[in-house]
Amino acid sequence: MKIAVLGTGMVGDTIGSKLIELGHEVRMGSRTANNEKAQAFVSKNGDKASAGTFADAAAFGEIIFNCTAGGGSIEALNMAGIEHLNGKILIDIANPLDFSKGAPPSLIPSLSNTNSLGEEIQKTFPSLKVVKTLNTMWCGLMVNPGMLNNGDHTNFISGNDAEAKQKVKSILNTFGWKNENFLDLGDISAARGTESVLPVWLRIWSATQNGAFNFKVVS
Amino acid sequence: MKIAVLGTGMVGDTIGSKLIELGHEVRMGSRTANNEKAQAFVSKNGDKASAGTFADAAAFGEIIFNCTAGGGSIEALNMAGIEHLNGKILIDIANPLDFSKGAPPSLIPSLSNTNSLGEEIQKTFPSLKVVKTLNTMWCGLMVNPGMLNNGDHTNFISGNDAEAKQKVKSILNTFGWKNENFLDLGDISAARGTESVLPVWLRIWSATQNGAFNFKVVS
Repeated sequence: MKIAVLGTGMVGDTIGSKLIELGHEVRMGSRTANNEKAQAFVSKNGDKASAGTFADAAAFGEIIFNCTAGGGSIEALNMAGIEHLNGKILIDIANPLDFSKGAPPSLIPSLSNTNSLGEEIQKTFPSLKVVKTLNTMWCGLMVNPGMLNNGDHTNFISGNDAEAKQKVKSILNTFGWKNENFLDLGDISAARGTESVLPVWLRIWSATQNGAFNFKVVS
Repeated sequence: MKIAVLGTGMVGDTIGSKLIELGHEVRMGSRTANNEKAQAFVSKNGDKASAGTFADAAAFGEIIFNCTAGGGSIEALNMAGIEHLNGKILIDIANPLDFSKGAPPSLIPSLSNTNSLGEEIQKTFPSLKVVKTLNTMWCGLMVNPGMLNNGDHTNFISGNDAEAKQKVKSILNTFGWKNENFLDLGDISAARGTESVLPVWLRIWSATQNGAFNFKVVS
């Protein structure tokens, strides 16, 4: 499949590299066509990797991963262009972290509590099929769930389109996620819940000095 | 031990009844001395149970459980009176839920994100030793962790006073909590993290129609 990865940070690099390992073609998008980290991603991953602007990547991808910083996601999608987003699935991994008030980051007030980044993207681009998932864990674990507890821990998923969620689950199955470890929380407003996991995630990370953990919902 | 339970809701009733079952004397505090739910608690639990105002209960208790609604906790503690709180441990189970904006509840803006109820209580009553714990789960599970996964799931704890946290752990051990299932997140500012669990907790509860679940941190 042709897949767009928006964002050149650690999350985008990890997701993009895994997709190429699985045989997909990946175009990494960023603000400029010659982003250094995107070039490094291409060098590392060979022929199936390419890089370009957000618009180049979105035009290329049949499906889009949002791996941008949450505070810049709406702007990045605007730069991608509505004509390149229409009708596509957007897998939204981003979190609306606010680094302006010191460490650990808090959540951007306008995108949390009674709103969320996932919802804001869905409202701003109604033709996108936004699926929120993977955003509650370290990126190394997103693409290799089996590294912990034989893969037995929880990945939350939400979105308004049932078919789109099913399609995303199928892709994540190829990362190693088992169907019994998805917890479907309903429509995209559930992103208010999963994005609110970040504050406790950051405290656990700080207390344990180890990002390779996840939550398992035990019932 | 003589223990105060502030609040007459389901959480206060569950905690108070468990403490009496374990042999403690419990005084349940509320806004008025003749609260009906507090009277029912006394009738049900016999001689070791008593009820009174927030001040009556705080004066009685060597240790205090805050089981009030989060939005009313500071007022309840003001009514309890600083002279009855001085130097005591307050086990803060409350969450700053905001029911004013519809269901599911959000968090009270002034008590979340860059603040928390736990911190606000600690700032307002510096002589209290505030320990935040148990607030990320259904009350039935607080007093009976063994009902799920042989008790193997996570109870977060935070607070500024190490000795107070140790004392609280000892009490929770008698509820069935094993030491390896406490996750100490550091000082009371970590309450920002654990109180932020509520939005995802509420979404899981809504999606599964079952409150008898907890998070286990897998690493």
